Amino acid sequence: MNRAFLEFLSRHLLPLANPQFRKDPIVDRWVIVSTDRAQRPFSSHGDTAPAAKTDCPFCEGNERATPTEAFALRDRQSSPNQSGWQVRVVPNKFPALAALGDANLHNEGTYDSIDGVGAHEVIVECPQHEKSLARLSHQQVSKVVTTYRERLLALKEDRRLAYGMLFKNVGEAAGASIEHCHAQLIGLPMVPVMVRDELAGAAKFLDRHQRCIFCDLLSRELAAKHRIVCTTERFIAVTPFASRFSFETWVLPRTHQSHFEDLEPADIDEFASILKAVLMKLDAGLGRPAYNYFIHTAPLNVPPQESYHWHLEILPCFSRVAGFEWGTGCYINPVPPEQAAAFLRGTEI
Amino acid sequence: MNRAFLEFLSRHLLPLANPQFRKDPIVDRWVIVSTDRAQRPFSSHGDTAPAAKTDCPFCEGNERATPTEAFALRDRQSSPNQSGWQVRVVPNKFPALAALGDANLHNEGTYDSIDGVGAHEVIVECPQHEKSLARLSHQQVSKVVTTYRERLLALKEDRRLAYGMLFKNVGEAAGASIEHCHAQLIGLPMVPVMVRDELAGAAKFLDRHQRCIFCDLLSRELAAKHRIVCTTERFIAVTPFASRFSFETWVLPRTHQSHFEDLEPADIDEFASILKAVLMKLDAGLGRPAYNYFIHTAPLNVPPQESYHWHLEILPCFSRVAGFEWGTGCYINPVPPEQAAAFLRGTEI
Repeated sequence: MNRAFLEFLSRHLLPLANPQFRKDPIVDRWVIVSTDRAQRPFSSHGDTAPAAKTDCPFCEGNERATPTEAFALRDRQSSPNQSGWQVRVVPNKFPALAALGDANLHNEGTYDSIDGVGAHEVIVECPQHEKSLARLSHQQVSKVVTTYRERLLALKEDRRLAYGMLFKNVGEAAGASIEHCHAQLIGLPMVPVMVRDELAGAAKFLDRHQRCIFCDLLSRELAAKHRIVCTTERFIAVTPFASRFSFETWVLPRTHQSHFEDLEPADIDEFASILKAVLMKLDAGLGRPAYNYFIHTAPLNVPPQESYHWHLEILPCFSRVAGFEWGTGCYINPVPPEQAAAFLRGTEI
Repeated sequence: MNRAFLEFLSRHLLPLANPQFRKDPIVDRWVIVSTDRAQRPFSSHGDTAPAAKTDCPFCEGNERATPTEAFALRDRQSSPNQSGWQVRVVPNKFPALAALGDANLHNEGTYDSIDGVGAHEVIVECPQHEKSLARLSHQQVSKVVTTYRERLLALKEDRRLAYGMLFKNVGEAAGASIEHCHAQLIGLPMVPVMVRDELAGAAKFLDRHQRCIFCDLLSRELAAKHRIVCTTERFIAVTPFASRFSFETWVLPRTHQSHFEDLEPADIDEFASILKAVLMKLDAGLGRPAYNYFIHTAPLNVPPQESYHWHLEILPCFSRVAGFEWGTGCYINPVPPEQAAAFLRGTEI
């Protein structure tokens, strides 16, 4: 982290009363302006990374270092905000959005903004100081996935929110500021552009071909086989035809389903096992790379969609996004996805 | 750079005969799959960065380390591929696209691809081993801008190409693999999605309001003043209302103009001076941060557009893009653009 920038943040930045969503007037792109985010620890890797449970705010026993828990899977005899939990959900200490208030729209000439309200939670995925989801037991990963589902269901109760984005940053190169294994959930008052574009593309395909484009692609991939990383009875892990990044991998249910939170409890175990398998293959074959993953699912407040199909996208970080990508929106990928899939298929775990 | 990934690239990656454009079947997103890019030096910063002209392929005297020059501003008495130049343009040694061939479309079920043909040039911006454009003389920056314009004009002659993306990566965090001051130009057979979205948004605004949205925003910004970084008679540098990144800054001509390459030679000097001023302010105020910049201009083969207005976008890199941004397309910016502009206005150069 650039020292002069940190100095700007600590000496010059004036906190805004509330975060704001601002809309780019030319393209349909929202930005969250949130000075609270500037306060979070920017350099907890390297020298200053908590090496063990004593300093880590997410380790069992340090519950007082976080805001009050919103949810936990914990031993029956244990109490909230005490030890005895397996997965624990707390509000983000440095939230991008304000938890309270209404998402009022403001207009100033050509400029639109919305009050920056929404949810921002941290899902602590294990009590011990472990960095990698892939190294948790299968049973523990099932608990993590169960928690993802529970928290998305909880967001549905908040009528201000249109979308829940569940995401995970692993490693400094992927933007993680704390190394203890965790995911985040941000609830937004609008459907974000990446999902909206997918929904629109999928709706157009349904309109033309009377079927879900994801189901269509899955059956092609299963027939062709060369981009399949691994499968279970009900899930598939595949490197997409137009992968943006080396070893980009998507996990999808074989049976059509638009909402992740509609996952049957019986399927959670199986989803956990394929997710763990893919992450283990990435760790084993590629030296525990930094990566992001996120779940693309249908908006919170819509009924099941015939056109849309939820999936989890894993984006490993091997190189930097640079000017060409920012300027064009076109990515340069040095590893053909067919070769990525073959390598991961052959990587033993 | 991850060691296991480098090992994959050197031991397992099979080169493709030709690069390919692949289109995501769900959203309108092209990807370039190019194994040649995997061969470029990934770690020329830090230990292995050429400290001086002896090892740097871009330094004067080392012309044999690059492919044959495509263009140069050089002393009259000097010869191509010899010393005596001020700005030198060479094909990229590790091109993302193939220079020869036609951009044929291929289709395989739901999957579309195009042969990865196009231009990929490196513009070496000074003969001496200098990293920062901001530290070049005003006269030298004018020569750099003149060269940008010349190379975009040259791309217009190639009827296969629809778009020319001029971009620059400065610093390792911004994806630069060589530190000697340079920019790149990639000629594409299609208009990339980021530009297409801007063209569409601007066309919609023209349709509704009978004026260019950029001209409209400029007059608002000049009246409000608080997002202006600096101005000259014919150019403005502004931090956009919906800045994605801390200290994001755009430079635009005050007078409507859709194509960068239509810049009058008389205006080049002035554009060079505002560009240099903004970069000097970033360097002085924020400790020479890594950044990307690129020019958004109208497509190569269209007449002047009433709706579109070229501009240069500078995106400093202070933090990593993470899972939330990848999943949503929504950026979290900790520095309100009004505060960024005030800080840069107050930064003396």
